[in-house]
Amino acid sequence: MLTIYNSMSRQKEVFKPLHEKRVGMYVCGPTVYGDGHLGHARPAITFDVVYRYLTHLGYKVRYVRNITDVGHLEHDADDGEDKIAKKARLEQLEPMEVVQYYMGRYHKAMEALNVLPPSIEPHASGHIIEQIEYIKKIIDAGYAYESEGSVYFDVPKFNKDYGYGKLSGRNIDELLTTTRELDGQSEKRNPADFALWKKAAPEHIMHWPSPWSEGFPGWHLECSTMSEKYLGETFDIHGGGMDLKFPHHECEIAQSVAHSGHPAVHYWMHNNMITINGKKMGKSLGNFITLDEFFTGSHELLEQAYSPMTIRFFILQAHYRGTVDFGNDALKSAETALGRMLDGYRRLQELKASDVSTIDVSTLEQRAYEAMDDDFNTPVLIGVLFDAVRMINQVKDHTASATQADIDFLRKFMDTFLVEILGIRVDGDGGSADSLKPYRDAVDLLLEIRSNAKKNKDWTTSDLIRDRLAAIGFSVKDTKDGVEWSV
Amino acid sequence: MLTIYNSMSRQKEVFKPLHEKRVGMYVCGPTVYGDGHLGHARPAITFDVVYRYLTHLGYKVRYVRNITDVGHLEHDADDGEDKIAKKARLEQLEPMEVVQYYMGRYHKAMEALNVLPPSIEPHASGHIIEQIEYIKKIIDAGYAYESEGSVYFDVPKFNKDYGYGKLSGRNIDELLTTTRELDGQSEKRNPADFALWKKAAPEHIMHWPSPWSEGFPGWHLECSTMSEKYLGETFDIHGGGMDLKFPHHECEIAQSVAHSGHPAVHYWMHNNMITINGKKMGKSLGNFITLDEFFTGSHELLEQAYSPMTIRFFILQAHYRGTVDFGNDALKSAETALGRMLDGYRRLQELKASDVSTIDVSTLEQRAYEAMDDDFNTPVLIGVLFDAVRMINQVKDHTASATQADIDFLRKFMDTFLVEILGIRVDGDGGSADSLKPYRDAVDLLLEIRSNAKKNKDWTTSDLIRDRLAAIGFSVKDTKDGVEWSV
Repeated sequence: MLTIYNSMSRQKEVFKPLHEKRVGMYVCGPTVYGDGHLGHARPAITFDVVYRYLTHLGYKVRYVRNITDVGHLEHDADDGEDKIAKKARLEQLEPMEVVQYYMGRYHKAMEALNVLPPSIEPHASGHIIEQIEYIKKIIDAGYAYESEGSVYFDVPKFNKDYGYGKLSGRNIDELLTTTRELDGQSEKRNPADFALWKKAAPEHIMHWPSPWSEGFPGWHLECSTMSEKYLGETFDIHGGGMDLKFPHHECEIAQSVAHSGHPAVHYWMHNNMITINGKKMGKSLGNFITLDEFFTGSHELLEQAYSPMTIRFFILQAHYRGTVDFGNDALKSAETALGRMLDGYRRLQELKASDVSTIDVSTLEQRAYEAMDDDFNTPVLIGVLFDAVRMINQVKDHTASATQADIDFLRKFMDTFLVEILGIRVDGDGGSADSLKPYRDAVDLLLEIRSNAKKNKDWTTSDLIRDRLAAIGFSVKDTKDGVEWSV
Repeated sequence: MLTIYNSMSRQKEVFKPLHEKRVGMYVCGPTVYGDGHLGHARPAITFDVVYRYLTHLGYKVRYVRNITDVGHLEHDADDGEDKIAKKARLEQLEPMEVVQYYMGRYHKAMEALNVLPPSIEPHASGHIIEQIEYIKKIIDAGYAYESEGSVYFDVPKFNKDYGYGKLSGRNIDELLTTTRELDGQSEKRNPADFALWKKAAPEHIMHWPSPWSEGFPGWHLECSTMSEKYLGETFDIHGGGMDLKFPHHECEIAQSVAHSGHPAVHYWMHNNMITINGKKMGKSLGNFITLDEFFTGSHELLEQAYSPMTIRFFILQAHYRGTVDFGNDALKSAETALGRMLDGYRRLQELKASDVSTIDVSTLEQRAYEAMDDDFNTPVLIGVLFDAVRMINQVKDHTASATQADIDFLRKFMDTFLVEILGIRVDGDGGSADSLKPYRDAVDLLLEIRSNAKKNKDWTTSDLIRDRLAAIGFSVKDTKDGVEWSV
């Protein structure tokens, strides 16, 4: 029985999809005007695991994650320059060149992190008509008004009829009165109102015709519109980072209720934030580290490179509703832990069966499902996987034994929970298994020759192989069953 | 002086960009409803090399390649089902799920072929407003008419004023009279007229509001609209496969002339078609081979797998305006030739300099530029590169010598023309150079031990290494400078 913590009700609820065997899920994607960073990686990995687990449970999941390529203004506000248009101006490019470039880099980073592509990845600029039609309905319902070519959502009226701010728990009365001093908002009836459509200033490059003006849609609108288009007026899960609760998701809720008369989302899910050495990540703080910088170790705060799988594993070692602090020590621990897990996975492929088992695998599967069913508790699942690794190591070291049936079970168990659900790549060396095969065989041959040399007391050769392999970067370990090695 | 064969003038013309130092290029991209095949690979690789060469020459190139995700009906006609909607119906998916899936696979195949992403990759469904505005202008100019909610382009009127069919050389009078018997075209004034906007039938899933009906744009319109949006009313190069000349490009020309009063494109470029064992590729002929099937060798017509670089090299061994026939013998020859080229590239990195050169590298660069300047003549360029490889092999085998300056020149020459312009990947083993480094070192160590064993007359060990490396799949060659190996 899968339970999900619903940010709206603030409690865990049993998951019941709207349509049997099908799940509709919408997650807020990136505004593509810069390189991917941890603020992109965490929601992507969090909801990738949700997607993978729901699929594993047999649901047909339609997973929509958007690309914001217009309308997201600086400071997430209704004024200021469009983030993408600004980058385009600075780099002397067409805005869609900026979008194409950073979207490509985002996709590459997601692939490195083994994040599956969503079922649909709609672009805000590709749904202008749909957004205009959506606005018309909100105006018809009486919750938006035109003002000097722009259209604003009427927050006080919506608040009176439906209540505004339930998700974030903001004090709406305070909100309606304290933001009055902001500049350039004279078009609005109330400073808390937000833009559905903005008339384009003459210098604004991206604009489309509408009943109100040549302009562009407000940032919050795309998610309401595109989720409705691809998932329907009500759908199961809406995800995103906690920082999006207000104003973004609060505005989404207002828009969809005003548009359809009822809320769209059944389960709101929010991943918690990340910090770096205890501080919020920010460009002005000098601790803004891109994913590529993590992968190559090229940022001055990093003592080494961390592989995409280390980053993924580290993020999954925390529950998604907890904070995660990125520091070198914690990342190195994650790297070591992942190494142990992968070593266990590799050893498992070589285990030799006995007639009797002295290990007890009987509770593993149930505990793994219980962890995931408990609001996707990946750290608990990882603990269960380490219990399995401990058993594997015992059998490998002959301090325990396992039947063929138990070994087969362990292989299926690890493939299901480590590879399929947690999405950890087990080849772990960057290349595909196939292209490395001959090289692996060559290393095995080297170690065989070393073993022969030892037998023949040819210490020159055996020492040469030992020393040079160590210098190249191989770690070689003698075990009862022969020699094990890794890069 | 770069010359380009202009399909419109049917002759080679000196290339002069509209704006100094900048080039605008539009190439027709895929309709994403199935796996990528050679009909996708050839234009992509052809115009990738054009893009790479223009960039090498110092132009800032804005390269637009579209994704067709709506409006492309069966048989490229104005009637029949939308190709993507049909696939969505058959697979019980939302059309945009089909688009996302096959677009992802297309991108993966393009990356395997080392085809660079374009600067902008606009989607037809993301530019409905722009297409509606474009149609309005054509109607205002008098070259289109509404009929029962659809809008058609008035071919006879356009033909009278501007002439229709110049690019393809079609006999327009014949065209206007012989297609009259087609079904379901009673909405049209003339059977040669083509749809700019189609009213959606009730069962059609993809439709948008417009001044004429809930409907969708005609297939030809997206390219005129999106090239105008991102490259302007006139731009330099329009590319595509020869099969698109009629009707697609002919309709594009009519649309843009009707819209702006003048043609949009300065240089029309068309790559020729591919055949398989002498026959046109077609699903009904049983010779429809996807790119993935080539890469894995999993189609019954293929005797083995062919790597993406073999496919790319094979395509570039022919001039883009010539036909290419894919057969096992020809592909195996290309594989061997590519192997020779890559061996030469690798040996070049190990060449030892002499005080004098007995090779003459002085004409290589000029001949390479002459080849590319002659309408991107890649087969001639490949010939020049093989001349360089011959010199490399002579120096390596000590039948010739080269100074450090000549070796440096050869390295720069190969990096420029083989890697940068032809886009051939020289690591050639699928993995990244870095992740393979320790393995390569291990193989070198093996060969060093074999050499030591030989010196010590330890034939058991040296034979073991030789036989096992051969069995694993390594090819080892003794040369004067030591041992060379490859997988």
